[in-house]
Amino acid sequence: MKAFAISSSLAFKSFNFTHTRNRISTPFHSNTLPFLPPIPNPNPNRKIHSSSPIMASSIPPSINSELARSPPAIPMPAPPLTKFNIGLCQLSVTSDKDRNIAHARTAIQDAAAKGAKLVLLPEIWNSPYANDSFPVYAEDIDAGGHASPSTAMLSELARLLKITIVGGSIPERSGDGVYNTCCVFGTDGKLLAKHRKIHLFDIDIPGKITFIESLTLTAGETPTIVDTEVGRIGIGICYDIRFPELAMIYAARGAHLLCYPGAFNMTTGPLHWELLQRSRATDNQLYVATCSPARDNGPGYVAWGHSTLVGPFGEVLATTEHEEAIIIAEIDYSILEQRRTNLPVTKQRRGDLYQLVDLQRLNSH
Amino acid sequence: MKAFAISSSLAFKSFNFTHTRNRISTPFHSNTLPFLPPIPNPNPNRKIHSSSPIMASSIPPSINSELARSPPAIPMPAPPLTKFNIGLCQLSVTSDKDRNIAHARTAIQDAAAKGAKLVLLPEIWNSPYANDSFPVYAEDIDAGGHASPSTAMLSELARLLKITIVGGSIPERSGDGVYNTCCVFGTDGKLLAKHRKIHLFDIDIPGKITFIESLTLTAGETPTIVDTEVGRIGIGICYDIRFPELAMIYAARGAHLLCYPGAFNMTTGPLHWELLQRSRATDNQLYVATCSPARDNGPGYVAWGHSTLVGPFGEVLATTEHEEAIIIAEIDYSILEQRRTNLPVTKQRRGDLYQLVDLQRLNSH
Repeated sequence: MKAFAISSSLAFKSFNFTHTRNRISTPFHSNTLPFLPPIPNPNPNRKIHSSSPIMASSIPPSINSELARSPPAIPMPAPPLTKFNIGLCQLSVTSDKDRNIAHARTAIQDAAAKGAKLVLLPEIWNSPYANDSFPVYAEDIDAGGHASPSTAMLSELARLLKITIVGGSIPERSGDGVYNTCCVFGTDGKLLAKHRKIHLFDIDIPGKITFIESLTLTAGETPTIVDTEVGRIGIGICYDIRFPELAMIYAARGAHLLCYPGAFNMTTGPLHWELLQRSRATDNQLYVATCSPARDNGPGYVAWGHSTLVGPFGEVLATTEHEEAIIIAEIDYSILEQRRTNLPVTKQRRGDLYQLVDLQRLNSH
Repeated sequence: MKAFAISSSLAFKSFNFTHTRNRISTPFHSNTLPFLPPIPNPNPNRKIHSSSPIMASSIPPSINSELARSPPAIPMPAPPLTKFNIGLCQLSVTSDKDRNIAHARTAIQDAAAKGAKLVLLPEIWNSPYANDSFPVYAEDIDAGGHASPSTAMLSELARLLKITIVGGSIPERSGDGVYNTCCVFGTDGKLLAKHRKIHLFDIDIPGKITFIESLTLTAGETPTIVDTEVGRIGIGICYDIRFPELAMIYAARGAHLLCYPGAFNMTTGPLHWELLQRSRATDNQLYVATCSPARDNGPGYVAWGHSTLVGPFGEVLATTEHEEAIIIAEIDYSILEQRRTNLPVTKQRRGDLYQLVDLQRLNSH
């Protein structure tokens, strides 16, 4: 903890959207693009002539890099603890939901017994990964209790074992929609955050893999970042990892760790699964943890497996093959600041040339 | 060529900044951040209540994804040719500039003789990679002729061999500054573009690698993308590759290929060189070519080597070790559209949640 010299001058609560799902109105864009207004001259003694443009190098680097994120990036807060073990439960999944819940329960207990303070589950661990299964296996998470036996189990175990659980994902029914949803539970068993997959998995590689999640699922409406007893965690589900903007937004909101439950397949798995994890970790200088279902070579969707923990230099710290496995691996947040000192990219961005806008955070200001 | 069904409705010339270095004034930012104004309601029959936010899913996906880039991404133009060979000349570099120029000349001739229509050279190929060498070896590229024997050679060879040359980089003297500069020559020998390294290499990994380019070099002021006879090429130099925003901007400007001359070192090379290339190619679904100096295990800077061509799925198409080498490899642009159909991420972005602003292109509108 003492390794984090960067002060956290902005309170996290002011941008924790995970509890305020409907508080912040989602901006409704017209086809007219938003524009950036002319920027005032910060130095009134220096006149700006259009015929004699001022070089960007005259902008102090600190301001220049700050402008590369709008709103400016929030300093990474001191995490509540520096070192802990994460458990990645790469579970087999069947068509028997009761079995899947009991099986996940055993795995979480096992991971906790092995010292995991944070347990991550796979994408869609209580149901087959199939469009015709999602509506059938979907649960009403907000109603809870008997309406959501999968999350009731996660909540109970988080409380009993005093661990944080990033509960992979399950199909969620809410109103008219079915979502691919990840629930995060704190050590008191309370639901800290709910992430609905933002980018649906609609791809078509003929002869290899075609899947159109949007046939049955509705996309989520918000990025999800949450303060837990094991740090500030940004959540993405599977295909969300393909969009670098989401990881960059989380980093700008001060994330220590990104968790991506994901079920890549036998085509995109070997091509991109590890690559995407390593690049999100390297570009954003934070930890990335992923958790896949174990591979089932039956007639349905075949998952790649290879759940992995990646460090802030893009180094694979722990991984596995495609069988069932529980990975226990150490996360050491003191490395984050060290890496950012080694390679100070966050201070070297060119906010005079590009800017990544986090629209939700901007509109909440 | 026929494989490119996407129409190029916006003429490229309108955003080719490479010839108009001083035309577009660089915005001078104050500490007051630019903001996005409230966005008008495009459907007057539908009232927006702040208590009842409109879901982003009501925005047509095409508009939503378009909003993820500001200005909206330009459709990738039909390239002037579909298939061709690129030559990556991984050259040894000495302290003898005349030898370096003669050596590069031979390598370029060799690559062209082997069928390369585009030749890429390493970062700083006419000078040792050292702060005390840059000012000594620097040339006045704009003056040309005897003031810049390195680029005079490149221009002559491009014309004689009828090839496009992305001339790695050399130290450039201009006014009071010394830059790390890449020149692109067309098949008529004309200078098509000049890229000055935007992100200077200032890093500090104690006991491993410490280098502060900004002690002697000045950073460039503009991204550089250029139409050539072998496609639309975005240029970055070495450390520029660490900034995903630059590659994303080039993709949004319709690039087919990114070329990064680069001299990664023995620490960051094995850690990140291939990873960064593969992630820029995968995230942006385009080709990435890199070219390093060959390794010299002397007392100076030791380059990692490993010049590489990466395809739009992040696949390493050709690479080498650290010795001198000329890599000849095929680029097939017809794959680009295919990959973007397979994984249509450019149409799946969430412009209601994030937006990458290309400030130079925006301000030129």
